[in-house]
Amino acid sequence: MKSEKKSGRITVVTKILEANDRVAEENRRMFSEAGAYAIDLIGSPGAGKTMLLEATLPALAGLMRVGVIAGDIETTLDAQRISAFNVPVVQATTGAFGGACHLEASTVRQAADQLDLDCLDLVFIENVGNLVCPAEFDIGQGARVVVLSVTEGEDKPLKYPLAFSTADFVVINKADLLPYLDLDMDALRRNLRQVNPKLEWVELSARTGGGLDSWIGWIRDKMDAREGPAKR
Amino acid sequence: MKSEKKSGRITVVTKILEANDRVAEENRRMFSEAGAYAIDLIGSPGAGKTMLLEATLPALAGLMRVGVIAGDIETTLDAQRISAFNVPVVQATTGAFGGACHLEASTVRQAADQLDLDCLDLVFIENVGNLVCPAEFDIGQGARVVVLSVTEGEDKPLKYPLAFSTADFVVINKADLLPYLDLDMDALRRNLRQVNPKLEWVELSARTGGGLDSWIGWIRDKMDAREGPAKR
Repeated sequence: MKSEKKSGRITVVTKILEANDRVAEENRRMFSEAGAYAIDLIGSPGAGKTMLLEATLPALAGLMRVGVIAGDIETTLDAQRISAFNVPVVQATTGAFGGACHLEASTVRQAADQLDLDCLDLVFIENVGNLVCPAEFDIGQGARVVVLSVTEGEDKPLKYPLAFSTADFVVINKADLLPYLDLDMDALRRNLRQVNPKLEWVELSARTGGGLDSWIGWIRDKMDAREGPAKR
Repeated sequence: MKSEKKSGRITVVTKILEANDRVAEENRRMFSEAGAYAIDLIGSPGAGKTMLLEATLPALAGLMRVGVIAGDIETTLDAQRISAFNVPVVQATTGAFGGACHLEASTVRQAADQLDLDCLDLVFIENVGNLVCPAEFDIGQGARVVVLSVTEGEDKPLKYPLAFSTADFVVINKADLLPYLDLDMDALRRNLRQVNPKLEWVELSARTGGGLDSWIGWIRDKMDAREGPAKR
């Protein structure tokens, strides 16, 4: 698939990924030893990752102790929104260039160092809004969740297969808009299965809260099944 | 903003961009000499780039000769949709890795070589669905247009500033969904101006056709103002 011309560049990319994978494994150990489960949230700009957290954090309050790492290229807008929920939040801003389009394991490590992981059960890592690059980088998560808005169309699993094939779960968001769209939900479900036969998903609206229970249930099941020392 | 550790990588990235810029200038000359105006369409997955073309191509039929380069990571779904409109279309698939998240000038060149540019007045280059990486790469376009769906939220210009600061025009798409959203349109307009005071935009619905006239008008004005040999 690659041309000869590009082989030097491919080598550089491969080295970057190998270095990343080593740090990702360290992160995974760090999260596990602290008993903090890490969920990597990826999705297109505007898929509703932050609003999903805004709906999820109150639903988890009292059930578990949650922290958030909010990844962005620029601005601290998401971290500001999250901080209203009185959970520890760290903004990871990837800067103007060089790793801008996704979080890397080292960026997550730096952000996690600012959280007291021993006092957390769950860490949401909201990745940069991008359905391509974040899928290529392991950041040491326990699970990867793709947030997909119904407004994006039923063809997205086929067009961005890596995101969906590396995902453990999909939140199909903005279900309240379905009556106003031409989305073929059966085709979307079929496309999800085609790309990743093991994939589970839930259809919900972070805005209205409809369907949120299934998402909370999936998180709780994942938490119950996780490895690592019990905290309580 | 950059750490010392990353300087080697930054050098590689800089070299890639410099090489790209040289090919982009060649592309620009190629398009200009052929009298074919090139419009780079960028936007998030699901912003409606392909549907915008599906609405635009019939509106331009008889007015000018149009070709399309459809960029994607995987699949030829978009090119198939476009080919229904009886315009020359070339699929540029960026492959599984190494330049996957955006079109580069060299990819556009290879695709353009499959079009008879001398017989075209306008070439739409539909970039990979991604609001980050495509903004970093000049592909030799005459104009860059960001397609932004109203479902993505009013904060997007601030969070993805490079896309909007390098754009000549913004198509705010899916305006038919506005009654069902909490979007603050005034804030969106304000944010667009903040990032790029010269930016012009139009609000339309590619699905219903509402507002399409202003977009067609912008294209025709751009075509009238372009440099290069007159063809007719």
